[in-house]
Amino acid sequence: MAKNENQPVWAGRLGSEPDPVNIAYCAGRDVSPRPMADAALVPYDIWLNQAHALMLFQQKIISKEAHQAIQTGLKRIHRDHNMGRFQLSPELEDVHMNIERHLINQYGEELAGVLHTGRSRNDQSATDVRMFLRWHNLQLMDSSCELVDALLSRAEKTMRTIMPGFSHTQPASLTTFAHFLCSHAQALSRDLQRLQNSYQIINESPLGAAAGFGTAWGIQRQSTARWLGFRGIQENSIDCISSRWEMEAQLVTALTFMATHLSILAQDIIFLSSHAMRFIRLPDAYVTGSSIMPQKRNPDFAEVTRAKCAMMQGHLQSLFSIAKGAISGYNRDSQWTKYIAMDAVSEMRDAPYIFTQVINGMALKPERMRDEAARNFITAIDLSDQLAEHCQLTFRQSYLLVGEMVKLCEKQGHFDYGICMKFLQSKGVQVDLSEKKWLQMLQPERLLTRRKSYGGPAPGTVKDSVNNLRGSLIDFRRWSHRQIERIDQARKNLRDAIDKAMQ
Amino acid sequence: MAKNENQPVWAGRLGSEPDPVNIAYCAGRDVSPRPMADAALVPYDIWLNQAHALMLFQQKIISKEAHQAIQTGLKRIHRDHNMGRFQLSPELEDVHMNIERHLINQYGEELAGVLHTGRSRNDQSATDVRMFLRWHNLQLMDSSCELVDALLSRAEKTMRTIMPGFSHTQPASLTTFAHFLCSHAQALSRDLQRLQNSYQIINESPLGAAAGFGTAWGIQRQSTARWLGFRGIQENSIDCISSRWEMEAQLVTALTFMATHLSILAQDIIFLSSHAMRFIRLPDAYVTGSSIMPQKRNPDFAEVTRAKCAMMQGHLQSLFSIAKGAISGYNRDSQWTKYIAMDAVSEMRDAPYIFTQVINGMALKPERMRDEAARNFITAIDLSDQLAEHCQLTFRQSYLLVGEMVKLCEKQGHFDYGICMKFLQSKGVQVDLSEKKWLQMLQPERLLTRRKSYGGPAPGTVKDSVNNLRGSLIDFRRWSHRQIERIDQARKNLRDAIDKAMQ
Amino acid sequence: MAKNENQPVWAGRLGSEPDPVNIAYCAGRDVSPRPMADAALVPYDIWLNQAHALMLFQQKIISKEAHQAIQTGLKRIHRDHNMGRFQLSPELEDVHMNIERHLINQYGEELAGVLHTGRSRNDQSATDVRMFLRWHNLQLMDSSCELVDALLSRAEKTMRTIMPGFSHTQPASLTTFAHFLCSHAQALSRDLQRLQNSYQIINESPLGAAAGFGTAWGIQRQSTARWLGFRGIQENSIDCISSRWEMEAQLVTALTFMATHLSILAQDIIFLSSHAMRFIRLPDAYVTGSSIMPQKRNPDFAEVTRAKCAMMQGHLQSLFSIAKGAISGYNRDSQWTKYIAMDAVSEMRDAPYIFTQVINGMALKPERMRDEAARNFITAIDLSDQLAEHCQLTFRQSYLLVGEMVKLCEKQGHFDYGICMKFLQSKGVQVDLSEKKWLQMLQPERLLTRRKSYGGPAPGTVKDSVNNLRGSLIDFRRWSHRQIERIDQARKNLRDAIDKAMQ
Amino acid sequence: MAKNENQPVWAGRLGSEPDPVNIAYCAGRDVSPRPMADAALVPYDIWLNQAHALMLFQQKIISKEAHQAIQTGLKRIHRDHNMGRFQLSPELEDVHMNIERHLINQYGEELAGVLHTGRSRNDQSATDVRMFLRWHNLQLMDSSCELVDALLSRAEKTMRTIMPGFSHTQPASLTTFAHFLCSHAQALSRDLQRLQNSYQIINESPLGAAAGFGTAWGIQRQSTARWLGFRGIQENSIDCISSRWEMEAQLVTALTFMATHLSILAQDIIFLSSHAMRFIRLPDAYVTGSSIMPQKRNPDFAEVTRAKCAMMQGHLQSLFSIAKGAISGYNRDSQWTKYIAMDAVSEMRDAPYIFTQVINGMALKPERMRDEAARNFITAIDLSDQLAEHCQLTFRQSYLLVGEMVKLCEKQGHFDYGICMKFLQSKGVQVDLSEKKWLQMLQPERLLTRRKSYGGPAPGTVKDSVNNLRGSLIDFRRWSHRQIERIDQARKNLRDAIDKAMQ
Repeated sequence: MAKNENQPVWAGRLGSEPDPVNIAYCAGRDVSPRPMADAALVPYDIWLNQAHALMLFQQKIISKEAHQAIQTGLKRIHRDHNMGRFQLSPELEDVHMNIERHLINQYGEELAGVLHTGRSRNDQSATDVRMFLRWHNLQLMDSSCELVDALLSRAEKTMRTIMPGFSHTQPASLTTFAHFLCSHAQALSRDLQRLQNSYQIINESPLGAAAGFGTAWGIQRQSTARWLGFRGIQENSIDCISSRWEMEAQLVTALTFMATHLSILAQDIIFLSSHAMRFIRLPDAYVTGSSIMPQKRNPDFAEVTRAKCAMMQGHLQSLFSIAKGAISGYNRDSQWTKYIAMDAVSEMRDAPYIFTQVINGMALKPERMRDEAARNFITAIDLSDQLAEHCQLTFRQSYLLVGEMVKLCEKQGHFDYGICMKFLQSKGVQVDLSEKKWLQMLQPERLLTRRKSYGGPAPGTVKDSVNNLRGSLIDFRRWSHRQIERIDQARKNLRDAIDKAMQ
Repeated sequence: MAKNENQPVWAGRLGSEPDPVNIAYCAGRDVSPRPMADAALVPYDIWLNQAHALMLFQQKIISKEAHQAIQTGLKRIHRDHNMGRFQLSPELEDVHMNIERHLINQYGEELAGVLHTGRSRNDQSATDVRMFLRWHNLQLMDSSCELVDALLSRAEKTMRTIMPGFSHTQPASLTTFAHFLCSHAQALSRDLQRLQNSYQIINESPLGAAAGFGTAWGIQRQSTARWLGFRGIQENSIDCISSRWEMEAQLVTALTFMATHLSILAQDIIFLSSHAMRFIRLPDAYVTGSSIMPQKRNPDFAEVTRAKCAMMQGHLQSLFSIAKGAISGYNRDSQWTKYIAMDAVSEMRDAPYIFTQVINGMALKPERMRDEAARNFITAIDLSDQLAEHCQLTFRQSYLLVGEMVKLCEKQGHFDYGICMKFLQSKGVQVDLSEKKWLQMLQPERLLTRRKSYGGPAPGTVKDSVNNLRGSLIDFRRWSHRQIERIDQARKNLRDAIDKAMQ
Repeated sequence: MAKNENQPVWAGRLGSEPDPVNIAYCAGRDVSPRPMADAALVPYDIWLNQAHALMLFQQKIISKEAHQAIQTGLKRIHRDHNMGRFQLSPELEDVHMNIERHLINQYGEELAGVLHTGRSRNDQSATDVRMFLRWHNLQLMDSSCELVDALLSRAEKTMRTIMPGFSHTQPASLTTFAHFLCSHAQALSRDLQRLQNSYQIINESPLGAAAGFGTAWGIQRQSTARWLGFRGIQENSIDCISSRWEMEAQLVTALTFMATHLSILAQDIIFLSSHAMRFIRLPDAYVTGSSIMPQKRNPDFAEVTRAKCAMMQGHLQSLFSIAKGAISGYNRDSQWTKYIAMDAVSEMRDAPYIFTQVINGMALKPERMRDEAARNFITAIDLSDQLAEHCQLTFRQSYLLVGEMVKLCEKQGHFDYGICMKFLQSKGVQVDLSEKKWLQMLQPERLLTRRKSYGGPAPGTVKDSVNNLRGSLIDFRRWSHRQIERIDQARKNLRDAIDKAMQ
Repeated sequence: MAKNENQPVWAGRLGSEPDPVNIAYCAGRDVSPRPMADAALVPYDIWLNQAHALMLFQQKIISKEAHQAIQTGLKRIHRDHNMGRFQLSPELEDVHMNIERHLINQYGEELAGVLHTGRSRNDQSATDVRMFLRWHNLQLMDSSCELVDALLSRAEKTMRTIMPGFSHTQPASLTTFAHFLCSHAQALSRDLQRLQNSYQIINESPLGAAAGFGTAWGIQRQSTARWLGFRGIQENSIDCISSRWEMEAQLVTALTFMATHLSILAQDIIFLSSHAMRFIRLPDAYVTGSSIMPQKRNPDFAEVTRAKCAMMQGHLQSLFSIAKGAISGYNRDSQWTKYIAMDAVSEMRDAPYIFTQVINGMALKPERMRDEAARNFITAIDLSDQLAEHCQLTFRQSYLLVGEMVKLCEKQGHFDYGICMKFLQSKGVQVDLSEKKWLQMLQPERLLTRRKSYGGPAPGTVKDSVNNLRGSLIDFRRWSHRQIERIDQARKNLRDAIDKAMQ
């Protein structure tokens, strides 16, 4: 079979089919070109032209004939584009010239040439990019909501899955897998907040700023802003043009925070699924083999996510650096901010989906986790707390005693009853505990339920946390769906208004 | 006079005394050390200890005697610190150990040693830093509000101060100084929005997360959060510790956006005050001379601001890079995030003040601005619009004609009536304009009033913009003052509660 | 005419045809896709396979038949590729699998399947990228040598073209255009040095490192290294794989330094060609018009260069961040380093050529430059020096007196004889100078010739500098051509050895 | 004991005293201020003044009396500074004004005021910084040589210490600890090369460039350059001033590469010393305890190194960003480049020493390493190679068979003889191996010796690598010591020349 022949050489050994989204996520640009930047703007530029033409007509700046020609032409381009038949010509500089020239070629300078009245390529391009940014902002909120949902759902099922928590990459203290998952859900919820904040800043219309200094034509910026689904207008016209890095940086900032969180989650997954830890086993569809070491189950998606995080840092840096020390008004440098924003979106778009699938699909090894939580003195802090309570010691006193006990029991690898009792007595500490009580006192399950400070790992506490996080997740989802509806509605309103004007 | 002897060598020539804040702003760290980082945290750590001790007492975790000793000791340290008599000892690692050891030395292990119960240096340090970040977040909002205010006030007085607007560093189109100032006020208003968003994310209490895995002690995180003036609790305890880069990056992100805006404003000021442009003359107190070129009036504050903007980029980069690919839980790397945040605050703290003074104090050269606006074909776009309107041409036709007229009149340096008429006639364009009308048509003042698209430079339009920006400025100010009051109130409430508990 | 119709709308007004390289340089990725990354590696991968196969055959690891099949197949792929008929198939992951699969499809697993013996995709990919980096390193040296040459040639013709030198963006002191050009030539010469250093570090063969841990097959790394034109072998096999960011960062570092220098030169050009300064007029083929402001002559190439410099910063940052905190050995993250290096090369490749053309083609305005050099007290430093000498004052005394004279003459705009004499006498300074002598003393041409400290602007001194810089330019050129010859020779040697082995 | 009381709370449990250098390395700036920047420049500024004054005297620009006063005064300041009695006064802007004013206060304007003749603070500051950078460049070479030495020495003793090598953070293939150490030694050797290249670029004298445009005074730049130990002169005077970011960036680039290598080594150490791996045990003097988890042995130095690496990235970014888009000549922004370079040096100075101590002092667990190397199919690649050889299979065929065998033996955890034989026979592979032979074939020690491709892990091969690396280490050491001698000699020559001139 042709298909099998072209399968990755390492795929044979794995149980289930690789997810093609993950293949693409990991394959990067090796055999995949980056499309011309303006290809992504075609639908936005058509939409913008429709709104601008209608406004010009309503303001009596262009004639009914010109308006009709333009709208008919735009509809045709739109249809051709949807069928993949409208290709941007590299000789025509950019998407704006491509569309304008196309209209002029069809309807003549007289009718179609009026479309550029009262605007400039500066505000036009800024507006197209703004619609691009806004859309991907919402898409990323959507897919990130899915990921938070997956984390919380998995957390609901692992509230008693005891494992060691880590600090300094060393086992440090008792926790549960649910508690660990919630920590990531909580961090990602702040990213949702950032995406929401970012959307509000981005979603203002620069259309009508012209080249930065407004226009004498009697345009109506409110109308076009409304038809394009913006929540308002970015007022000052110079600022509309000078900020052609800031809106891009606004989204890329949100992406960089999210990429960093995903990179930390990725590193956790790499570590916990490593042969050394074996706490989790990744789903077959999301590991990669090696062309030379057939036993490998490589978490490529996670490594690639770390790389993508580094890409975000570079992209953000480039954006800030382009803007730094520019004089205000338009500078050609800002054109590069479009590429950066597009590259950033392109790198991160599928990341939340991939992690959602991995969180849903990974298998846990609860015994191994529990074993590791019982060893290695990770209950030292709990013992210290309990001794303090039991023997009326201050925290510091108890802490120092436990420190010495760790040293004495290092060979045993756990708090040996005999050694500890002898030591405590030698220190004059009154301690009245049978061996059974001692062991009970150190049992992970028991210790865990005691760790019920707000936000802590006790199962009941984590349950509350999950509920709280679900609450805010519902709000974010509702909000983001409302924005999508608003945009759809705006588009529909514009179409209706055009139809009416065309009658 | 000793003072004069030590005056900068270049100061003699300038009319007014240099502003010492500006001297320090520009002098940087040449002869000024950076203080130990934890010095800035002393008041926050005392406050935190007060709240934590009271909570422990209320939860019956520590005795009345211990509580009394601790509160009395903290009060004393607070007083000593205010009088400059509490110095951090480098042998004691950090502010937390310094204060704890100080209490233990005075009241003994038995009483003071209980203070560390139910917490860790991890959450303690995270909380101190959070209070530091929060405070400077508000301070920066405050001083940025002043700057926006200054820009708007100056704009109100310069709505008819015609000048060329620039694109590609070339004079491009008519505008006014007010319109230019508003563009910066509008950009900085988004920074106020970012600072507000940032504050909401930062202002949650991590106290009680202990080393990241909560505690079995019966602590009340709600109480301490309230007494410390937080708006809520950062719930999941691992996240409290893992995010010890994110809150820092949150504020530094807001600072980087603001620094970039100030750096653009700085570059505008450097350009417009340069000998080449001479549109503005900087106030004597904010320029610097040269030790070898006595005629120089250097805008050092503006150049230094560009450098500070570059510093912010580096700081932000370091923060993201520290976090990228870490495993979750505490890692020592995160300690460096504190220094970065402090360095960032230290660089930017005075920037809004300096710019406020410069905006208030700079002198304008309206004639020179107006002259430059009348020359150099910067009315080409207006002529193009008017010709299109007057002669029923499409925008593109008119645009191409004006392009040719610029070429023909290049030697004259302005649109010469004779040449233009002849050219238009040769192109078969019907144009019925006397020389007087022609000149009138091109008069900057007249053209300006026509540029009344929303957000454009027409005086009436700018007036509306100023009003709109003032409206949001009032909101930001109110909001930020409310936060300051809340923090003050929280502190007062804590003091009252301590007094009550001490009776 | 179809061609004219598609011409940029702004081009009509300009005197000469735009340079298509500049059009592409400024157009960026608007309507230009980024090709799949591995497309650039096809020739290198073929070459590598040829060398590897020959070595395997010479080491008796593969049979004569297998070797013949492989070499014949590779030759065919090479020919097809040159004719644009070998396209990478996206289903086959990367260039390595594409070529290997192609051979296997033609000659069967039995013969072609042995090609991957004793190597891994890790070292193969590292080697391909190394050859890519090395080649562009040399190409950039070559084009940068042209630019330095252009700067020096123009300097030779402008040694007496007086202009003000700037500090703080303010006119500061006398200099010449040649002196200014030499400063850029000298900076770029250090970039040549960096590219040379970079080449030495990059040009070592990682082939044979396999997956990082060598191989038991009896391979000969020396042979393949020699046939691929490497100067030596990167020995330790783990390091070969762990360093798959460092070689990329090595070249990108050199590019970032160069981009920064070009960005400074770009900013100088923007400033000096601005309407405000008008010292230089850019060649028509390298300026861009505006779709709405027909009079604009925008230095887009220079602005774009600033943006590209910001891109380099981001790229470098991403590379360092990918590597930071990785564990050694192969990690999938490193695949992204290839894209970054390719993007970086793609942005900067044409920059030296563009600047060469601009330096060669720009027109100077010597009178305007000289005028500006005579005004504005920029001779203050010279006057100070001369007064000190003439009147036996210390430098500081003279400096303070001139400072006061600037203040007194501010309205006159130059050092007025009468005012200055009166002032000096009032200060008790004995000065015996007629007005003629005074004016002579301040004449720019005369002052210039006195500025003959080594590396200073005096014409004779600049002549020496040009000669020195030419000397090192010749060395760099010779060295870089020698490297190109070596690579060509290596390729030829390999072909001969294959032919011999095939007999 | 007072000392013990102030000991870190966690230190009690550890066996040996913490190294105070490591304490400071990890403590960062918590309770340690950053000194004023110019404090580090005092000795360089004195030296520079001595050379400049002597040159002025030799050139007959200043009198014998002035020269004598100045040299006597400088000697006194030097002595006071060595005794800690010369403190910079913050009122006097910078080190240059402090020293100059000090001389004037002692010897009067008449004598000491002539010192600033023929120079500016610009070139003076550039030169001071250059001497600072140069010195730390050499110091870092020196301490890095020590580290490479330690790696090689430890490698010499661990050539048969088998361990698994990693890729994707998963055990991948056989290697030895020596092979692993050599990979780091080789990477750090390239850093030595970079430091050497960097030194050559940095070590040129900008003194005499004055404010960027040379001087009319008859100075001799060659003399001062020689007396200050520079290898030559940075000729063009504008470039001397414009490059006041580049030399800083040059060193910081070398530091960033080195920091990245150390950060990778740090991550390896964190991973291999983690409880999960337990391959190495860090020396007590270089681990840190926890104030709440007494059992922790935290590799703080390694985590801090990762943070420092992130700092370097930020510093480098800031340097490039300060320079990007500046116009040439002096800009005040460049003052910040001094702070960045100093901060960078301050972070990294002790890093090579710390790693040297850790490499020397860490204990290995050879049995655990060997165990892990025998498990987990990490010999799959070797088996694949041997099967290919033994059974006349192509690499691909053998690879696919081994892949299936891994799958079949997954439960056994190793290549089970019975399962494998049965499988191979079922596939029609002729294989004639007894169980004894089979086990022998897979024995790590035997497999290791076969891995003798150049740069591979076979003990004999690693021995050759160590020798090669030692060879280049000797060269670097010799070179760096020669530079230190040259600088010392230059200083001595200056002193002698001053003595002679003072007679």
